[in-house]
Amino acid sequence: MDYIKRILVGKPLKSGTGDDHKLSKFAALAMLSSDALSSVAYGTEQIVLVLVTLSTAAIWYSLPIALAVLVLLISLTLSYRQIIHAYPQGGGAYVVSSQNLGKNFGLIAGSSLLIDYMLTVAVSVSAGSEAITSAIPELYGHQVAISVIIVLVLMLMNLRGLRESASFLMFPVYCFIGVTALLIVVGVVKILIGQAPFHATSAVGQAIPGVSVALLLRSFSSGSASLTGVEAISNAVPFFKKPRAKNAAATLAMMSIILGCFFCGITFLNYWYGIVPEEKVTVLSQVASHVFGKNILYILFQFATAMILAVAANTGFSAFPMLSFNLAKDKYMPHMYMERGDRLGYSNGIITLAFGAIVLLFIFQGSTERLIPLYSIGVFIPFALSQSGMVRHWNKQGGVWFVKAIPNIIGAIISYAIIIILFVFRMADIWPFFIIMPILLYVFYAIHKHYISVAEQLRLRDEIQEHEFSGNTVVVLVGNVTQVDIGAINYARSIGDHVIAMHVATDENKSKEEEIKQEFSRHFPDIRLSVVHSSYRSIVGPVVRYVDLVSKNARKHNFTTTVLVPQFVPNRRWQAVLHNQTSLRIRYYLSWREHIVVANYSYHLKK
Amino acid sequence: MDYIKRILVGKPLKSGTGDDHKLSKFAALAMLSSDALSSVAYGTEQIVLVLVTLSTAAIWYSLPIALAVLVLLISLTLSYRQIIHAYPQGGGAYVVSSQNLGKNFGLIAGSSLLIDYMLTVAVSVSAGSEAITSAIPELYGHQVAISVIIVLVLMLMNLRGLRESASFLMFPVYCFIGVTALLIVVGVVKILIGQAPFHATSAVGQAIPGVSVALLLRSFSSGSASLTGVEAISNAVPFFKKPRAKNAAATLAMMSIILGCFFCGITFLNYWYGIVPEEKVTVLSQVASHVFGKNILYILFQFATAMILAVAANTGFSAFPMLSFNLAKDKYMPHMYMERGDRLGYSNGIITLAFGAIVLLFIFQGSTERLIPLYSIGVFIPFALSQSGMVRHWNKQGGVWFVKAIPNIIGAIISYAIIIILFVFRMADIWPFFIIMPILLYVFYAIHKHYISVAEQLRLRDEIQEHEFSGNTVVVLVGNVTQVDIGAINYARSIGDHVIAMHVATDENKSKEEEIKQEFSRHFPDIRLSVVHSSYRSIVGPVVRYVDLVSKNARKHNFTTTVLVPQFVPNRRWQAVLHNQTSLRIRYYLSWREHIVVANYSYHLKK
Repeated sequence: MDYIKRILVGKPLKSGTGDDHKLSKFAALAMLSSDALSSVAYGTEQIVLVLVTLSTAAIWYSLPIALAVLVLLISLTLSYRQIIHAYPQGGGAYVVSSQNLGKNFGLIAGSSLLIDYMLTVAVSVSAGSEAITSAIPELYGHQVAISVIIVLVLMLMNLRGLRESASFLMFPVYCFIGVTALLIVVGVVKILIGQAPFHATSAVGQAIPGVSVALLLRSFSSGSASLTGVEAISNAVPFFKKPRAKNAAATLAMMSIILGCFFCGITFLNYWYGIVPEEKVTVLSQVASHVFGKNILYILFQFATAMILAVAANTGFSAFPMLSFNLAKDKYMPHMYMERGDRLGYSNGIITLAFGAIVLLFIFQGSTERLIPLYSIGVFIPFALSQSGMVRHWNKQGGVWFVKAIPNIIGAIISYAIIIILFVFRMADIWPFFIIMPILLYVFYAIHKHYISVAEQLRLRDEIQEHEFSGNTVVVLVGNVTQVDIGAINYARSIGDHVIAMHVATDENKSKEEEIKQEFSRHFPDIRLSVVHSSYRSIVGPVVRYVDLVSKNARKHNFTTTVLVPQFVPNRRWQAVLHNQTSLRIRYYLSWREHIVVANYSYHLKK
Repeated sequence: MDYIKRILVGKPLKSGTGDDHKLSKFAALAMLSSDALSSVAYGTEQIVLVLVTLSTAAIWYSLPIALAVLVLLISLTLSYRQIIHAYPQGGGAYVVSSQNLGKNFGLIAGSSLLIDYMLTVAVSVSAGSEAITSAIPELYGHQVAISVIIVLVLMLMNLRGLRESASFLMFPVYCFIGVTALLIVVGVVKILIGQAPFHATSAVGQAIPGVSVALLLRSFSSGSASLTGVEAISNAVPFFKKPRAKNAAATLAMMSIILGCFFCGITFLNYWYGIVPEEKVTVLSQVASHVFGKNILYILFQFATAMILAVAANTGFSAFPMLSFNLAKDKYMPHMYMERGDRLGYSNGIITLAFGAIVLLFIFQGSTERLIPLYSIGVFIPFALSQSGMVRHWNKQGGVWFVKAIPNIIGAIISYAIIIILFVFRMADIWPFFIIMPILLYVFYAIHKHYISVAEQLRLRDEIQEHEFSGNTVVVLVGNVTQVDIGAINYARSIGDHVIAMHVATDENKSKEEEIKQEFSRHFPDIRLSVVHSSYRSIVGPVVRYVDLVSKNARKHNFTTTVLVPQFVPNRRWQAVLHNQTSLRIRYYLSWREHIVVANYSYHLKK
């Protein structure tokens, strides 16, 4: 086990080494913008998929919708720049909402984000495997399996630690940026030189019968999923090299410009080439094969898309453990999310995220389209809350607060608008969110209450009552009479003033019981062996009842009670599964009893 | 947990109550023949599926092949009657082969059967869900999910105990016998009164170009899968009411007659009505809808088929745990397979079987057709071995042994012939069997060797060296200084001559370390607190190293070493996941160290 872990996870790192793991702008763009940039892999498709439910002629509406998404992007970018400067220590929605709107809103943002990060992983890897199956039709039908494998690989990489991943991840991101830029340039040049005739399903502005505001808003809400991930940089300011806020803000601006260009460019090419969504090939893949032709460039493009989506999934792997660490530190999640693993990553968070994402992939059968509405609601609730929190933040600072707050006010209004749109037009897809989130909130509060109550109960009062016991009763559990018992009884004699041996006999084998009694008294003539009968084959029940009785008696005489469970330790670890099941169970159940100390004597086999 | 288990599994039963759980012939037919009888649900289809790879005209060959299967059935029935009389204590292939051919052959039979029972469950439930999806096309595509649910339900029923299941299971078996008899009678009557015109794809005897011996043998080998399950009764003789052997033999005869009639009848109707296998509807379902029409009788028939297949899967659930018990008793499988659960079932065997069957269902995507060849080889290897064993058995008895051995000799020859056919013509399907079986054999021998070696090492020599220790060193692990530590240190003082407290400090929080030192010395001024530093955040490593050092020192002075790990027990069990992860891990790793007793002090929270 330990050996396998070493190979997969790597050597433990010293705690002090944490400080070198800081990101340059160049590395940060790779590490933190992949989520946002990779959205272009499915953003246009999600808009068009809604429009074609009416007719393929309606695809021209994707152009004005893309412009609306662009406006949204600009306003969110401006408001997140504000957050970066106001919270250089990392202004995730949880922190900003908690500090400015109170714990309740903070936890709503936090629980939304926990779900959302799982969705980030699920959506990204499912879109990634769709990119793969678009290029290699033979793999179609295995998207779920491909996705699960990607998640597991990401999990292992993250258990190995942050910086190693980052340097590793820069290549795919810059590769994607390169080939996508090339795609748009080649696509536009071909149009300009007349090599790509106008092929759109309808002219811009053509009246389409049956177009409704509802349809356009649904389509817009799907398209807004492209903006998931713009918050990533503002959460991760502490990971930047100094000056942190400045570097982070510059990286955010760079990312938004690239994202805006890509998104609009692809939507335009998609319209011009008249591409209609197909079941087995993604829209982006169709665009690429139209522009490049089915050659090596196309394959490279699909590969880069799949890679950046995998990297985007990785964003979840840095954000989720960080958030669960913060929630655990505030006693809303179990303490184990605070433990750092051998490689400085928060291992439990990483594993929980991978597990959650895999469950989502199975439930939604790896369908990006079905995951997107949930993803959007999970993103825009914390968006809205952190923008509201920022408005409050400026307001508290007083002065000309309103000027500073303008980008955040606009951001908040737009986010609330999208939430309302999702609520009104996508309820059929997003309802599970409103079941899971309250449950998470309830659990958070229950855990919090529990931790507070435990801390209260454990706190030492100033006067401590020392207690001197008059002696010790030791109960040694005996199965068959073996070598193990010699050492166990020697030990029991050394700590105990009163040693009792105990054997549980099942009704099925009377002769064996007699045999054990005789053998025991032959070897240990001075120790009483109590034989307890069990009619239910259960060993644990009778042991617990008997020990409780002994302990009651012992307390009367101011004695302690120790139950000594002998076991033997085989020479190789795997052999342990062949033994000791019963003693494990006994120890487990006895550890719940009061006034009983359970001790474990190990006899080591040599062969 | 315990509460949920009570609801699902039921109240514990006393060991003595085991004896009432005996089967009458009527109940035994339901309990033990379902595996064999249910084979008619897929037997004909498996024959025809091979034939139509040539052409649909070849279907007429299913008639002579069915006759060959019938001959096989008769000979196996006769030879298993011999086994019942020779082994009234239950003559499974494992027992018969071990006793007559030696341990090696016994284990080959045993490991084949373990795999085979998993296949019984997998094949039966997958055929069952195909019966369901044939009748309800809306469910098509969800066979795996349906199968897994059936397996889980069966597992729970079996964890509840044998007899309850049996009475519950009689209805579906007799219901299936009733409706299938009706199907054949109605089908034949319709033919006789001319309502069902001859519709076969070709006349019997018509020459089909391209027919080869290989094809016919492949088809025959698939059809012989219908005979899986005829051994079930001979394994279960001890479960019968007295006179056991006689009742068992009568039940076996009854079962074989019913099976033979059904199998031939359905194959004939299938031929006459000219039914060709379809992807989404089973052959049997097509026969039923031709004979009955698509009415309530048809639905009832499909339902009865699905039900008896579920009951057939249940055969595996009585056979597998019994076999694994026998293998565990002979020290070839882990001892835990000998433990009876609260309801007298061998719970670990039941759970292992369910798990294995579910894995098979996922691997083979619930396809009966792909599971069948593996199933056949898994069945006929133990068939052949137990028949060979019987020949040897009679031979050892001497006298006119040859007369008694005749049915077994014929049975053995046929079984070997089928194995050779499978080997030559189905290798592409059955190769996994020849990988898994040797691995199982290897594991059996490894386990055996280990148990023997352990027993040897643990055996008490006659002279026992008692050892008197001079005193006890107790190391108390301290995290934060809390209420828990008061009780722990009081206890440590009572058993220890030398008490040391130990705290592991991580490098990240220096001020906390100072705080703990001060608080500890204020409350426990007379006890030394050793602070050990950890650069790797791991608590376990430093604790183990320090304790090893203490123990080495203690042994020099002839002292024992006890490590006391304090923990607090929360008021509700689920809360335990929020605490004590570290102390659990420390206890686990320390329990592997020699010369150290690990003791667990529990402080109970009241709220």
